[in-house]
Amino acid sequence: MHAYRSHTCADLTAAQVGDTVRLSGWVNRVRDHGGILFIDLRDHYGITQVLCDPDSAAFADVEKVRSEWCIRIDGEVKARDPELVNAKLPTGEIEVFIRDIEVLGAAKELPLMVFGDQEYPEETRLKYRYLDLRREAMQENMKLRSDVVASMRRRMWDSGFREYQTPIITASSPEGARDFLVPSRLHPGKFYALPQAPQQFKQLIMVSGYDKYFQIAPCFRDEDPRADRSPTDFYQLDLEMSFVEQQDVFDTIQPVLTGIFEEFGGGRKVDQTWEQISYRDAALWYGSDKPDLRNPIKMQVVSDHFRDSGFAIFAKLLEQEGTEVRAIPAPTGGSRKFCDRMNVFAQKEGLPGMGYIFWREKTADAVAQELGIPVKEAQAKLKSGEVEGGMEAAGPLAKNIGPQRTEAIRQQLGLGLGDAAFFLGGKPKAFEAVAGRARNVIGEELGLTDKNRFAFAWVVDFPIYEQDEETGKIDFEHNPFSMPQGGMDALEGDPLEVLGYQYDLACNGYELVSGAIRNHRPEIMFKAFELAGYGKDEVEKRFGGMVNAFQYGAPPHGGCAAGIDRIVMLLADASNIREVIMFPMNQRAEDLMMDAPSEPQNEQLRELRLRVLPPES
Amino acid sequence: MHAYRSHTCADLTAAQVGDTVRLSGWVNRVRDHGGILFIDLRDHYGITQVLCDPDSAAFADVEKVRSEWCIRIDGEVKARDPELVNAKLPTGEIEVFIRDIEVLGAAKELPLMVFGDQEYPEETRLKYRYLDLRREAMQENMKLRSDVVASMRRRMWDSGFREYQTPIITASSPEGARDFLVPSRLHPGKFYALPQAPQQFKQLIMVSGYDKYFQIAPCFRDEDPRADRSPTDFYQLDLEMSFVEQQDVFDTIQPVLTGIFEEFGGGRKVDQTWEQISYRDAALWYGSDKPDLRNPIKMQVVSDHFRDSGFAIFAKLLEQEGTEVRAIPAPTGGSRKFCDRMNVFAQKEGLPGMGYIFWREKTADAVAQELGIPVKEAQAKLKSGEVEGGMEAAGPLAKNIGPQRTEAIRQQLGLGLGDAAFFLGGKPKAFEAVAGRARNVIGEELGLTDKNRFAFAWVVDFPIYEQDEETGKIDFEHNPFSMPQGGMDALEGDPLEVLGYQYDLACNGYELVSGAIRNHRPEIMFKAFELAGYGKDEVEKRFGGMVNAFQYGAPPHGGCAAGIDRIVMLLADASNIREVIMFPMNQRAEDLMMDAPSEPQNEQLRELRLRVLPPES
Repeated sequence: MHAYRSHTCADLTAAQVGDTVRLSGWVNRVRDHGGILFIDLRDHYGITQVLCDPDSAAFADVEKVRSEWCIRIDGEVKARDPELVNAKLPTGEIEVFIRDIEVLGAAKELPLMVFGDQEYPEETRLKYRYLDLRREAMQENMKLRSDVVASMRRRMWDSGFREYQTPIITASSPEGARDFLVPSRLHPGKFYALPQAPQQFKQLIMVSGYDKYFQIAPCFRDEDPRADRSPTDFYQLDLEMSFVEQQDVFDTIQPVLTGIFEEFGGGRKVDQTWEQISYRDAALWYGSDKPDLRNPIKMQVVSDHFRDSGFAIFAKLLEQEGTEVRAIPAPTGGSRKFCDRMNVFAQKEGLPGMGYIFWREKTADAVAQELGIPVKEAQAKLKSGEVEGGMEAAGPLAKNIGPQRTEAIRQQLGLGLGDAAFFLGGKPKAFEAVAGRARNVIGEELGLTDKNRFAFAWVVDFPIYEQDEETGKIDFEHNPFSMPQGGMDALEGDPLEVLGYQYDLACNGYELVSGAIRNHRPEIMFKAFELAGYGKDEVEKRFGGMVNAFQYGAPPHGGCAAGIDRIVMLLADASNIREVIMFPMNQRAEDLMMDAPSEPQNEQLRELRLRVLPPES
Repeated sequence: MHAYRSHTCADLTAAQVGDTVRLSGWVNRVRDHGGILFIDLRDHYGITQVLCDPDSAAFADVEKVRSEWCIRIDGEVKARDPELVNAKLPTGEIEVFIRDIEVLGAAKELPLMVFGDQEYPEETRLKYRYLDLRREAMQENMKLRSDVVASMRRRMWDSGFREYQTPIITASSPEGARDFLVPSRLHPGKFYALPQAPQQFKQLIMVSGYDKYFQIAPCFRDEDPRADRSPTDFYQLDLEMSFVEQQDVFDTIQPVLTGIFEEFGGGRKVDQTWEQISYRDAALWYGSDKPDLRNPIKMQVVSDHFRDSGFAIFAKLLEQEGTEVRAIPAPTGGSRKFCDRMNVFAQKEGLPGMGYIFWREKTADAVAQELGIPVKEAQAKLKSGEVEGGMEAAGPLAKNIGPQRTEAIRQQLGLGLGDAAFFLGGKPKAFEAVAGRARNVIGEELGLTDKNRFAFAWVVDFPIYEQDEETGKIDFEHNPFSMPQGGMDALEGDPLEVLGYQYDLACNGYELVSGAIRNHRPEIMFKAFELAGYGKDEVEKRFGGMVNAFQYGAPPHGGCAAGIDRIVMLLADASNIREVIMFPMNQRAEDLMMDAPSEPQNEQLRELRLRVLPPES
């Protein structure tokens, strides 16, 4: 018999009754039922109930074991009494009577229980990660992650892509975030950097004629702490193709991702048609460049209804250039209570408030005022049906702009009885983000957001440049590698009008994918950099490898990168990235289990010719 | 029609004759045949001949293109004349008449030709890697590497393993080689390290209950330059399993590797049965712990034949303790010329020389001496058959030890007419390595080594410890994580006698795999370290993460790691690791294309609180 097991803890069924078996695993729980010891023996695959009565020669040893000891047992498989069969457990028909036991690894007192759902502080979980990882939820998350990545690879291979590994110890690639540096021992005073992404290398692979590249690529960024990202590194499904346009990239990645979400989404609906929304429309409709389309609310411009209206704040505002009033329709939100709550939300977000209108059954108050009769009489007339009730628009805004404009707004927004609308005005840049968050909250609170769906949309036509509000300086909005729509000609006009073949994929409010058709023409690239204030020398210094390569027959190419940690988080329904990474850093970028970072040895610093300066210098 | 291509350059056959097609690719060669321009248009998939005559409107533009320009052409597919069909090319039945051309990317004058087999200095190849990578041999090598890694993954998944990613930015793991350090910005003065291997993490994954782990893992070692290895990083197929013994690991990895070598070995024979040879026997038989078993030569101890013999050097030597004489049989090596050449080889290796005996047809000289007659007479007797010729042993050694001992040696070694044997004496450690190299050269020169075979053998039973000859200090022979055979009891005796459950796989003279059953018992681990002079504190400081984990129910586990670069080199028949890595460093650990390592910005050093010291300090 094998030294450790004849079966895993998920294998045994009624078919093995009477067999002598050997199992190894961890003691999930020990229970003492009237002198008989019951152990749930757990391995990676499942749980088997094993037991020992005082007649067994092994009893004295079994008595000693505690939770999370690793043991090997030999025993006889017996059928459980019908009333004791556990239908929830694959091995629930049987139990194993222990004849022999060997302790493979004892355990000290546990800082963290594996069995059960008790919550522990993150520091404890990370320090004792090997115990945390034994817990069922973590086992499932890690298996999910592994299976998602495996499935991605299979799908990419099946799409004609090959995986090529790009260097991890390489040159600094100034892409916006901070590099991790690696001092060189052979060249003291010089440093390598860990790649923020394989961006330049994948483009070089295209210039090298490889046509279709992908990689499950580690990316390294020295980030300041933030809850929802790793402070050191993350993984992306990185891909690049030659001789393609934007739509070709979309047609390549969409089936891969829908496939993944269908395979691992636990039955949640997966959009089959992915809308393409311009960056401008996304801002207008959803107040975000990563809109959550599970939420059906779409904002609209309603400026005309407020121009020269009785609502002085908006009317005056609209006299300034570049201002707009936008409405957030809120179907089923037609109550003062809800509208007031949203108003408070806006105030918390730093706005003076959010105007609203809501549509309700006509009240006796309104009828009394309309007909010039006492409220009581109006109530009676409404009750008897002598006066028809119907819908009325409520809220201070409606009063200020009057029934006609109010009705026109209602019709534009397609709202009705029981619905509401919220209004924000000013320069769109100033309120778009808040409007987007308000849309999310409204969708959530009113239950409009379909939690059972993965909703995808491409956001396209990103501007290449943005202007710093304070300095007026023009700089790249995303990364500098995208091809401007219209090529060289487009760069002759207003830089802020130039759009790029640059795109993001939004899923449920997250940016899952980002990509572009690249600027592979050196002359257009130099011009694009010039507009952002970078001279030719600077470009050659910063991106020399790639720019040189482009002068030796570069093909048109493009691609994208999908965030793997984020995808697994969505599939696992996890809200913290550390739930889907095996050995994550804490938010202070420390590995508490391995004790990193740590003090170097003097000899190491000497070899690198480095000195650590004291804090104040 | 698609903007860039209706077909790849490998697609078109007689079936498309008459079609208008669009192709994109690189100009492999342009030829001018009587005013008609022929272009071999190349993409990742193949080559298509396209041509343009002066009647075409595109002629003037086609005339401008040069080698390695990236172009798009439209044209009509025509059948080639039967006598011009190129059967070697999948597209050899057709050619495409250019109607329209677009230059997608022009090329400057080339520092390196893609077409043809011209050799270039390595510095040129690495600086212009994107051109070098377009060459056919490199395209094949990179595709091979990608396909090998993909196949490894498929085979591991099919064997029930999941791939889990381990941290790349982590703690220093003192495993013998130098770490690359990464300074921490959030914790100035502290450093992360890049992992030399995921050794500790994969063991922690076992302690975490994941049962079967693998990873195509990047490993980082700050190595001094050497021709056959990357000075920065390499990849391994890393695997680990719980509840296993040594044979289980063998049974897991063997089918994966035989599968890979059969799939990609180009028809070369792949050993199906892998011998297990003890470390001791490997040293004796092959003078190496990574023997090349394509070479049938097996060395033997022949001390007894030299003890008290007339060959004073060996006879005297054998009086010292710990000495031996070993023979390298050399079938078909029986000529003085060959034996002398091998003797010179031994001298070049720093030995005084290598004694030999060879067996040849009896000479007239020998007969003359034997019978006491003149040589001429002996010649006549031999020719007439009056005296029988037969075999005689030649060489100074044979003379010294006499015919009886010589014949006993011949019989022990199973040699005969036309064969030779070489002899080395002394303390085995002092000559084993040279003997091993001599065995290789003999096998090569005599054509005994089967070049058409992948020959595998497990080398097992490595000693856990070795003793420094000078200091007498005991230290770990491999890494300190292996379980000693015999467990705690074994550690009570002579450390140098302790064998480990530790193994290497040799293939054609290379170490392809290395692994062990791990020491998962903290008390045995501390004891093992104690024997090598490391106190408990030191162990906890250096391997704290793992040693702590072992105290919470560690399972028995083991695994191995296979060198991917080496495997691909063997399959590609390449002799330099840079032929199978897409963007390798040069031997000075520089990336000439990306210019790494390079000077950091002052701001970066300031944030890290580091100062670079001048060379002399």
